[in-house]
Amino acid sequence: MNKGIFITIEGGEGAGKSTLIERISHKMQEMGYAVTTTREPGGIPIAEQIRSVILDRSHVAMDARTEALLYAASRRQHLVEKVIPVLQAGGMVICDRFVDSSLAYQGYARGLGMEEIWAINQFAIEDTMPDLTIYMDIPPEIGLSRIKQADERELNRLDLEKLEFHHKVREGYLKLLKLHPERIVRVDANQAVDAVLKDVLEAIRLRLGR
Amino acid sequence: MNKGIFITIEGGEGAGKSTLIERISHKMQEMGYAVTTTREPGGIPIAEQIRSVILDRSHVAMDARTEALLYAASRRQHLVEKVIPVLQAGGMVICDRFVDSSLAYQGYARGLGMEEIWAINQFAIEDTMPDLTIYMDIPPEIGLSRIKQADERELNRLDLEKLEFHHKVREGYLKLLKLHPERIVRVDANQAVDAVLKDVLEAIRLRLGR
Repeated sequence: MNKGIFITIEGGEGAGKSTLIERISHKMQEMGYAVTTTREPGGIPIAEQIRSVILDRSHVAMDARTEALLYAASRRQHLVEKVIPVLQAGGMVICDRFVDSSLAYQGYARGLGMEEIWAINQFAIEDTMPDLTIYMDIPPEIGLSRIKQADERELNRLDLEKLEFHHKVREGYLKLLKLHPERIVRVDANQAVDAVLKDVLEAIRLRLGR
Repeated sequence: MNKGIFITIEGGEGAGKSTLIERISHKMQEMGYAVTTTREPGGIPIAEQIRSVILDRSHVAMDARTEALLYAASRRQHLVEKVIPVLQAGGMVICDRFVDSSLAYQGYARGLGMEEIWAINQFAIEDTMPDLTIYMDIPPEIGLSRIKQADERELNRLDLEKLEFHHKVREGYLKLLKLHPERIVRVDANQAVDAVLKDVLEAIRLRLGR
């Protein structure tokens, strides 16, 4: 059995997940936890290769089900090689996106069905579910405008899709929040970073007793 | 709805699938059918890239579930881009390996479970099942010795696995044959090519009325 703590951070584009994860990680380390922050594909060679197939801009004709299966494959390998070993050793893993991303993006926004996406992801993750999931909620207009202003990273295929799609992603996340209130906590991401961090630390305290 | 005819050819390593497919294809074309022969990844760029991840010899640490998801992803893209358009146009597709390979190899021989492998493959193929599946049955010892003698193709990762594994693959196929006698026909592949071809053509005649 896993003795560690598994936290996932979810949200639409531009919600500020990366910055937040850095800040939580520092805080948790100060509190004495052995923290590993990661995101799929997380430097796992097989998962990196899969990710590069998914994000290749020449693949405009990639079928939505193909994409969903590739995400599940990448998730599996990352989980087995990187996440589970840390959890088994009693550490804390903070992961940028996990199964809820597939449910919100592919299952809900792309219309493949949350149950069907859950079926292939259940195959991928077996019984390794997060102890806590933070949903960084932000109106898509604000999230996308943040990305456009940032010079650090290039827009990828997902960023380029229509705003309407991002609204559906948000609906999907809010649906998941209703379905799994014991696991998912919504945090208002449309505030200053310090305020977001405070809310997240409170959620960790309340939900995990840490 | 698909108006065409979808035939898949299955079997262990060295069963002689490639040669057989060439011969059936010729025969069917003589009979007036518009035949497309293919195999996953079938020249579909996305599926080719996925396949190269699977067969990369440096990936000795690939998890069995990751592999199964990648096969399903490659299958999906190949089906959507190549198989379904031919079937919708009323043509005949003869495909070297399909869903039964995953069920026999990953589901049964690797022990992931046929039902679980079926779940991810059902997501991949939806309702596109073969009208007829030819199972080329050969004792693994004979199949593998055929491969070693042939200079044309390099041994891949699957070939290198133990003989015991190939015996389990055969058991898996024979289980599928029992489960789906209306779709799968066993042909003795341990005979001269002409005799194998005769058996296959008879199966096509009897099962598909062609």
